[in-house]
Amino acid sequence: MSPDLSRFDRVRAVRFADSVVYLLDQRLLPAEQIELRCETVAAVAQAITDLVVRGAPAIGITAAYGAAMAARQRLAEGGDFHTDWQTDLALLGAARPTAVNLVWAIEQVRNACAGLSAEDVVRVAQETADEIARADLAANYRMAELGAQLIEAGSGVLTHCNTGSLATGGLGTALGVVRAGVASGKVSRVYAAETRPWLQGARLTLWELMQDGIEVQLVADGGGAWLISQGKVQWVIVGADRVCANGDVANKIGTLAHACAARQFGAKFMVVAPWSTVDLGTASGDLIEIEQRDPNELLSYRGTQVAPDQARAYNPVFDVTPARLVDALVTERGVIIAPDTAKISALAD
Amino acid sequence: MSPDLSRFDRVRAVRFADSVVYLLDQRLLPAEQIELRCETVAAVAQAITDLVVRGAPAIGITAAYGAAMAARQRLAEGGDFHTDWQTDLALLGAARPTAVNLVWAIEQVRNACAGLSAEDVVRVAQETADEIARADLAANYRMAELGAQLIEAGSGVLTHCNTGSLATGGLGTALGVVRAGVASGKVSRVYAAETRPWLQGARLTLWELMQDGIEVQLVADGGGAWLISQGKVQWVIVGADRVCANGDVANKIGTLAHACAARQFGAKFMVVAPWSTVDLGTASGDLIEIEQRDPNELLSYRGTQVAPDQARAYNPVFDVTPARLVDALVTERGVIIAPDTAKISALAD
Repeated sequence: MSPDLSRFDRVRAVRFADSVVYLLDQRLLPAEQIELRCETVAAVAQAITDLVVRGAPAIGITAAYGAAMAARQRLAEGGDFHTDWQTDLALLGAARPTAVNLVWAIEQVRNACAGLSAEDVVRVAQETADEIARADLAANYRMAELGAQLIEAGSGVLTHCNTGSLATGGLGTALGVVRAGVASGKVSRVYAAETRPWLQGARLTLWELMQDGIEVQLVADGGGAWLISQGKVQWVIVGADRVCANGDVANKIGTLAHACAARQFGAKFMVVAPWSTVDLGTASGDLIEIEQRDPNELLSYRGTQVAPDQARAYNPVFDVTPARLVDALVTERGVIIAPDTAKISALAD
Repeated sequence: MSPDLSRFDRVRAVRFADSVVYLLDQRLLPAEQIELRCETVAAVAQAITDLVVRGAPAIGITAAYGAAMAARQRLAEGGDFHTDWQTDLALLGAARPTAVNLVWAIEQVRNACAGLSAEDVVRVAQETADEIARADLAANYRMAELGAQLIEAGSGVLTHCNTGSLATGGLGTALGVVRAGVASGKVSRVYAAETRPWLQGARLTLWELMQDGIEVQLVADGGGAWLISQGKVQWVIVGADRVCANGDVANKIGTLAHACAARQFGAKFMVVAPWSTVDLGTASGDLIEIEQRDPNELLSYRGTQVAPDQARAYNPVFDVTPARLVDALVTERGVIIAPDTAKISALAD
């Protein structure tokens, strides 16, 4: 890890201290910076449900620490430890539907603790949570290093949504590459798309980068193409919710538009995602079912109605960028230029 | 004019009745539908300045009727008619900077009335204003007919910003083509992009189409590419603020992103603009200076701060879509497929 890079990585979404889970309340950012103290497993589960913490890796780490905290409390209670703790794990696992990292992290803890005494579970659960957090951070630092190597000096970058420390164990995926590019002096301009309808770019990415002293400018989602066409952006750098076996990438709605503009005007498009995001079981993007959210997220803004009464909206959460528009896929295992099924399969082995 | 089409064209931004200018207050739409009664030339000018009415043709028509109203009032006052009326025209002309149609409309009225007696000015000014409104509406009906002929049955269309009756003398430019496509049964799906930062799509286009019983769905600006990639949109249909001699098109920020996506996924991109929008004096889009607006339009939302304190934003009003991405340019003079300098020059003669 470069000391220069850690200087640009000060924010943490999740802390575990004094056997309690602390979460930076992302619902309130950037207006208020409040750490929520979660002293019970129910409070941790509710915080995950209520989007106090979001971002798949950050949710997984939160759940793992929630499990560790629960083990310590169940031991102190002196009840039926194993039954009670499994109940806690189930509660945590149900906090967000279809959150792969959430279930995965809880399984990691459960498996590591299988067959152990209550006292050992308390110790091993926390060790496992620490390891999940450490491994995520290490993967992010590795991806940041690999991704930044692709960037030419004097480049401008455009990112979408929030893929930073707030969404992970620290540093971030796409935003980690942005940080490494800034730290190495290669990135001269950073643009963040506001990311409608939830405005993660405006609310979270700007806040996070500004905490670390990184200069960033907000642009409307529809302004990305214009920046790219004007030569202000050399790399579009985004995360992924899922990478298919053929390299198709599901990510926050709005990603595909940037990819089309990059290809049209000769900028490059980089996807940064831990290997756990690569879903070899899904051959291509057309097999992904895209979640549709409440139309009111577009028809209203923070409780104020924007569109007419009875108006309709189409509000998919994700889009799929076809592999042919992806110039580089960066994982902690390595970089794939122009990803396809064969190259991804080779890296999987 | 097809009777079917007028059925889908009920909204009017500007009315002149009882020698008074009435403007539908577009600042309040869609929450409130209030017609502002402007009884003085100062009130008309202020309404233009304050964006009660927006859209270049609608502004021009408003100013022309303002001039007609002023003539009638100056005659009744019995002062130095010609001096006073010219003062009124100057006031109207200064209501919005760089609004080409505004100055053009006032010049039309001024020239038509040159050398006439006060009594004749009152009559001719109103006739000229009526003619400006009539000609704009006629051009829109003609463009709607021409544009709709390009659309295949069963098509989905995506439009951006507001180019409808609210922005013109009626029917609209791009939205006129959408209406004609719906009226003829060729258009099966209408999508409107919300158009950040001012949300003209969410606020105005949805309201206007719903007034006319046209089904429409709102999408985030960044969602247009996904719709196109999924085969839900066959034509992106937009207006223009300026069309260069080579066919490059300046239009509301976000337009270019849709154009890139259309080209990438095989949908078509149509620009609908009256011939007065074609600027033969500007050879290409790189010669257009793009207006930058207040960053707070992105950093805040209706007075509520969204981004962190001290955050920066890049907020261009327009982008430029290169002619190579334009499949059809529709004007009242005719349609140009794949516009370029030679084809535009030929239609100019």
